[in-house]
Amino acid sequence: MRTYLDWNATTPLRAEAKAAMHDAMDLVGNPSSVHAEGRAAKMAMEQAREQIATALGADGAEVIFTSGTTEAAAMVLAGRNVQCAPVEHSAIKAWCTADLPVDGDGIVTVPDPARASLQLANNETGVVQALPQGLGSSDLTQAFGKIPLAFNWLGITAGFVSAHKLGGPKGVGALILRQGSEVEAMIRGGGQERGRRGGTENLIGILGFAAAAVAAQRDLDSGLWDEVAARRDALEDRLLAAAPGAMIAGKGARRLPNTTCLLTSGWKGETQVMQMDLAGFAISAGSACSSGKVRASGVLQAMGFDDKAAQSAIRISISPSMGDDQVNRFADAWESAYSRWRERNG
Amino acid sequence: MRTYLDWNATTPLRAEAKAAMHDAMDLVGNPSSVHAEGRAAKMAMEQAREQIATALGADGAEVIFTSGTTEAAAMVLAGRNVQCAPVEHSAIKAWCTADLPVDGDGIVTVPDPARASLQLANNETGVVQALPQGLGSSDLTQAFGKIPLAFNWLGITAGFVSAHKLGGPKGVGALILRQGSEVEAMIRGGGQERGRRGGTENLIGILGFAAAAVAAQRDLDSGLWDEVAARRDALEDRLLAAAPGAMIAGKGARRLPNTTCLLTSGWKGETQVMQMDLAGFAISAGSACSSGKVRASGVLQAMGFDDKAAQSAIRISISPSMGDDQVNRFADAWESAYSRWRERNG
Repeated sequence: MRTYLDWNATTPLRAEAKAAMHDAMDLVGNPSSVHAEGRAAKMAMEQAREQIATALGADGAEVIFTSGTTEAAAMVLAGRNVQCAPVEHSAIKAWCTADLPVDGDGIVTVPDPARASLQLANNETGVVQALPQGLGSSDLTQAFGKIPLAFNWLGITAGFVSAHKLGGPKGVGALILRQGSEVEAMIRGGGQERGRRGGTENLIGILGFAAAAVAAQRDLDSGLWDEVAARRDALEDRLLAAAPGAMIAGKGARRLPNTTCLLTSGWKGETQVMQMDLAGFAISAGSACSSGKVRASGVLQAMGFDDKAAQSAIRISISPSMGDDQVNRFADAWESAYSRWRERNG
Repeated sequence: MRTYLDWNATTPLRAEAKAAMHDAMDLVGNPSSVHAEGRAAKMAMEQAREQIATALGADGAEVIFTSGTTEAAAMVLAGRNVQCAPVEHSAIKAWCTADLPVDGDGIVTVPDPARASLQLANNETGVVQALPQGLGSSDLTQAFGKIPLAFNWLGITAGFVSAHKLGGPKGVGALILRQGSEVEAMIRGGGQERGRRGGTENLIGILGFAAAAVAAQRDLDSGLWDEVAARRDALEDRLLAAAPGAMIAGKGARRLPNTTCLLTSGWKGETQVMQMDLAGFAISAGSACSSGKVRASGVLQAMGFDDKAAQSAIRISISPSMGDDQVNRFADAWESAYSRWRERNG
């Protein structure tokens, strides 16, 4: 019996997404075809587009389906000379000059919003930024489905989202674009997505994405995530009480309700991930993409943590459906591993 | 009760792909994560990669998962000054100078293979090219699963494939790259696909793709497609006998076993598609991507057909599981529509 506390890496597929994808498997047509089978596929896809726009508070904005945030970011950022902070995900940093100042709680200062990209929430620490008006673009991936957000109120030109962070399938996402904005197609060909992104659409994935977005929005409205925050806060209190030298990155800032980035300086994060894995708990030592690499997190270094502290980080990202018992069993296991480490290094 | 004869636009999902995708829905992890859930996802993905390589006769070559042929083509062709013929799909022509000579049967001459891209089979006519040794790249999308092919024997550097043309899901495909070849990542970030293509992988789609490829290979080996060719030939004989002025594009060339491109000069292809749709049959008037656009097919114009003939084209692409009765019912319906058109235009 395993316990999955790596929600920010990817989420299990929600029942609603599964059901929608199952139904989508029987849609025979290509959405670009004009016959009845094609029109049925197209209609389902356009309904999904509207559902995602509504869940994102982006009615009237363009929703351009992509293979995920990484592709959406490349479409907007490649070759554009955009500034970002070192706390951004590698999908953003790949295209930007990552030199915006970051404070000890992970908060970024943006002197020139129009030519900057700033994430709404950080994947490792959960730190939530107050986006400046007129911001060029924002990676909304970790925030979407975890905190209330309305694209149309953020005052940004472009947003990036991925389905698999909110209970949808991996490999599908979207670029959200304020009406009237321009972006050149990177993948060209058949003219799909109004010429913004060629290639036959990932119909099954898109319908799973929409179902997950609708369900995630409903969960947010129901207050489910307030319970998650309370559970996470209790977990942090327990861990800090058990390990007096430990720190929570970004604790002074507003954070995602499910995310804890715990530093126990001197105890390698990778070791903790392996020990917890053997004990039946899935956590991570940074973003999934950089898992298995031994360098310290650039996010934590930018926040002023030294290498030893940064290399000790683990990320615990709990699921909205997770009960107190599961969280407590993790805390038990971690505290017991911590005691053994203390004894060896006492 | 509808009859789907638009197999080249997209195929229904095979039972094997459905089952594999259903199982994949229970894989919780991100393939980049190092914990047990991540490793299980990674292992499933790597097995899928090997299955696809084997089905393509590409053992030892790199299989880089993409959102489909359109993306794979962009990765290889963008900014490379590659030559192609006007019979290529728009995903190829988007990046190439489309001026290679084409004969009346759709066969392309390639003076400089190393800097050219040439499809193995055409989507509209089914015409199969004999690829010259040393060819830079080839769009294998329509050929894969319909005729035997071995990437390693084709003597090409790069090949493009999409799952949804052989019974897999839409929105997933691959770039096949000869070992040791270079291609720059277009979508950058987390270092997935050995740094060739960033972004969390479309795991459910990839596993569906692999299952479809294995099943398609088994069908090919079983001789199923020889029966398809016989059924298609019988259909063409019937249609040509009923409409003496009609022509089959590429009839003198080797063609895919399921594809008929029928020209009845003066009778608009779009009109035929609509009439057949109302009668319960899904066919197309060219590639799905360009459906709904009223211009004549560039493929047929390149083969020397005049506008009036080219605009009359319909594509009938039958399914390997389709029986004689379904094909005959289509022939009945088309012949009856043809008679009405002849009476009106007699």
